[in-house]
Amino acid sequence: MPEIPYRIYLSEDEIPKQWYNMAADMKDKPAPLLNPGTGLAMTAEELSPIFCEELSRQEVNISDAFIDIPEGIREFYKAFRPSPLIRAYNLERALDTPARIYCKFEGNNTSGSHKLNSAAAQVYYAKQQGITSLSTETGAGQWGTALSMACAFYGVDLTVYMVKGSARQKPYRKAVMESFGATVIASPSDTTNSGRAILEKFPGTDGSLGCAISEAVEYAVTHENCRYVLGSVLNQVLLHQSVIGIEAKAAMDKIGEYPDLVIGCAGGGSNLGGLMSVYMREKLQGRKAPRFIAVEPASCPSLTRGKYAYDFCDTGKTTPLAKMYTLGCEFQPSPNHAGGLRYHGMSPILSKLYADGILDEARGVEQTKVFDAATLFARQETILPAPESAHAIRVTIDEALRCKETGEAKTILFGLTGTGYFDMQAYMDYTSGKMTDYIPTDEDLQKGFDGLPQVAG
Amino acid sequence: MPEIPYRIYLSEDEIPKQWYNMAADMKDKPAPLLNPGTGLAMTAEELSPIFCEELSRQEVNISDAFIDIPEGIREFYKAFRPSPLIRAYNLERALDTPARIYCKFEGNNTSGSHKLNSAAAQVYYAKQQGITSLSTETGAGQWGTALSMACAFYGVDLTVYMVKGSARQKPYRKAVMESFGATVIASPSDTTNSGRAILEKFPGTDGSLGCAISEAVEYAVTHENCRYVLGSVLNQVLLHQSVIGIEAKAAMDKIGEYPDLVIGCAGGGSNLGGLMSVYMREKLQGRKAPRFIAVEPASCPSLTRGKYAYDFCDTGKTTPLAKMYTLGCEFQPSPNHAGGLRYHGMSPILSKLYADGILDEARGVEQTKVFDAATLFARQETILPAPESAHAIRVTIDEALRCKETGEAKTILFGLTGTGYFDMQAYMDYTSGKMTDYIPTDEDLQKGFDGLPQVAG
Repeated sequence: MPEIPYRIYLSEDEIPKQWYNMAADMKDKPAPLLNPGTGLAMTAEELSPIFCEELSRQEVNISDAFIDIPEGIREFYKAFRPSPLIRAYNLERALDTPARIYCKFEGNNTSGSHKLNSAAAQVYYAKQQGITSLSTETGAGQWGTALSMACAFYGVDLTVYMVKGSARQKPYRKAVMESFGATVIASPSDTTNSGRAILEKFPGTDGSLGCAISEAVEYAVTHENCRYVLGSVLNQVLLHQSVIGIEAKAAMDKIGEYPDLVIGCAGGGSNLGGLMSVYMREKLQGRKAPRFIAVEPASCPSLTRGKYAYDFCDTGKTTPLAKMYTLGCEFQPSPNHAGGLRYHGMSPILSKLYADGILDEARGVEQTKVFDAATLFARQETILPAPESAHAIRVTIDEALRCKETGEAKTILFGLTGTGYFDMQAYMDYTSGKMTDYIPTDEDLQKGFDGLPQVAG
Repeated sequence: MPEIPYRIYLSEDEIPKQWYNMAADMKDKPAPLLNPGTGLAMTAEELSPIFCEELSRQEVNISDAFIDIPEGIREFYKAFRPSPLIRAYNLERALDTPARIYCKFEGNNTSGSHKLNSAAAQVYYAKQQGITSLSTETGAGQWGTALSMACAFYGVDLTVYMVKGSARQKPYRKAVMESFGATVIASPSDTTNSGRAILEKFPGTDGSLGCAISEAVEYAVTHENCRYVLGSVLNQVLLHQSVIGIEAKAAMDKIGEYPDLVIGCAGGGSNLGGLMSVYMREKLQGRKAPRFIAVEPASCPSLTRGKYAYDFCDTGKTTPLAKMYTLGCEFQPSPNHAGGLRYHGMSPILSKLYADGILDEARGVEQTKVFDAATLFARQETILPAPESAHAIRVTIDEALRCKETGEAKTILFGLTGTGYFDMQAYMDYTSGKMTDYIPTDEDLQKGFDGLPQVAG
């Protein structure tokens, strides 16, 4: 009988009372957002027509390491946190590996993902400020679902621009958001100037996250008492997602485990940024720390093949500029790409850490191999993972198999960000053998780089 | 700050070590299964060509109150149990009720339901006996999914006959089962004699659970080293599901709560039978006990409008006869009925308890009101419930609102059997206003009763 249980739960009073802000401990700070008109760093005041005030302050806060979580957010967190830490004994047995595999499972709520952590915070602050409606974009649908749940809970109206390809692949995601009271519009749409412009330039396009962002931002600034919210990339989102890492470390500490490897999928960076947060703190403070690995799709390889440069966060070039690893804001992932992790850029904080060699490694993986890993994991651990999470599972399995070869008993912690219940079209493509891989050529990528804005920095 | 947390978890060593068998404590025993040829009670030996040996013994065991759970099953249980007990504070607040509302949530695994509790046991025993393949039916899809998960875990082949209407409404349920390695066939099909006969009699039928059972049983008895397994109705299934009630009572005891009302949806009876198990024991032993309420769809009202009589468990009339509340094995629920709880009969144990007035009450509820309740619950508690579970939520809300009128602070425990992630077509019908209600007329029901077999008893 193993002494460490299969699922390790913290108690309700161990839900974090403060978020952790990695930027505060970074000696070399992430580059600030720039005003594309002036080329100057954006202040909280300048951001506040887009984001609500408290979130604007959090966005530019690079000095406070810990920020209190308001009681009104912790109350909502109690409905789905603390999330379990899972010891993947069954997977270990199936792989016959000496590695000890843990994952922090964030899918135990209807959004099926970690996104609800930031949605709760963003809607709460908006409500506090008297904002009556929000707009956002969603790709795979987790963020839109999470936000619709938080909006239902706090009583705020919501309009979601959903990437058209995802909306078609996942009609039921739309239905979930509508069940929680949100209005869902497939993007690009004719409801905004940026949507109409993209439709004209790329008729028949499946859309992209960058394009949906343009529409959602436009919606927010053209509607009264409305603000825009974003589920990844931003510093504020990484801040809120630090609850993942804080809880994970508390649970690991409790059972006397310390990870050799921390592995997370990275699309915009919110999950990995959250998962590694307090472990990264140890590294930033010069102490012993795990090796950090970011995993991304080979078909949308911003960290592994992108450029570290200032770029727009959206296709319509309406947002502030962020310095990040990017494929260019006009990059459109291949239509055969299943679901999330299709964003052209990457969190400025993660980008800076990666550029400085502090985030140790990034790997691109092909999607059929990702679904091999997803299916193996599901059959052993009773949880059908989100395709996004399965990127981390792929590398976890690869590392565990390497341990089998070398005989090393490494401790691996990965982020099981969510469940795949609304990704069944992709699973169907996989089980029926119809799923294909795609790796962009250098020429494909060059097209995206050609669209990068000319900015100093 | 409330002292009772939102989610109450037991520790892994509190996973039950024994199942509880209500039949052992019933003074008046449930009627035995009859051999339709001889009219005599079936023995374990007679059942064993259909079920594996240990399950056959459990099926006829009406004397042992507690039966050990093998370690090999508890090992699998650890991947998804103990399941949380949820204090629905947010729902209480939204209803402004003095009632205290608890639910035992069984949806925290990919099957999205409690069905995995019995699937684990049934596949384990089959594997122990050297059985290499299993067949079953599934209606809403939870049972088939649960079984495909257990078969993947223990390494047993699986063929699932899925009710055709559900297969059409829920294409992704099929995909989940296939992701776990199962073969899924829409029923009625041309792969069995009973399927072909039903197709001939009712061309274009959407199928029914009773019909899918006929096909699955036929598949099992015509294939070598194959057995049939069933997800509800049977005594063995209620036995396995007692883990729900044992854990629920342990958690309630721990926080010093005792339910005034125990409310569960009832299709075949596995959930309610499991949830009430050890609370029912107190009543069977003459002690103080909660009031037990079974909730069923008004469109498939076996307890509230059925007959207590011997009937076949399947449409093809191939199974043993069970004495139960039944609408007649040829009863076909209306096509507008969403998802599960569409079985014509009811667990013989629950039927006997209800006939004797020990199971206190049964209520039929209409599906639009069920989805009103589902949506309200989801928006407050972050879990989109399965339509089946929402039947219990409907009556829980009704009772909580009655408490608001009377000022009584009743303690309510209901079974949140699962999640609705694969029921989005029904939610779409509801949110778009297309969902309708259906209540069969007495004449409709009479047609089903006319098909009841002529049996003594």
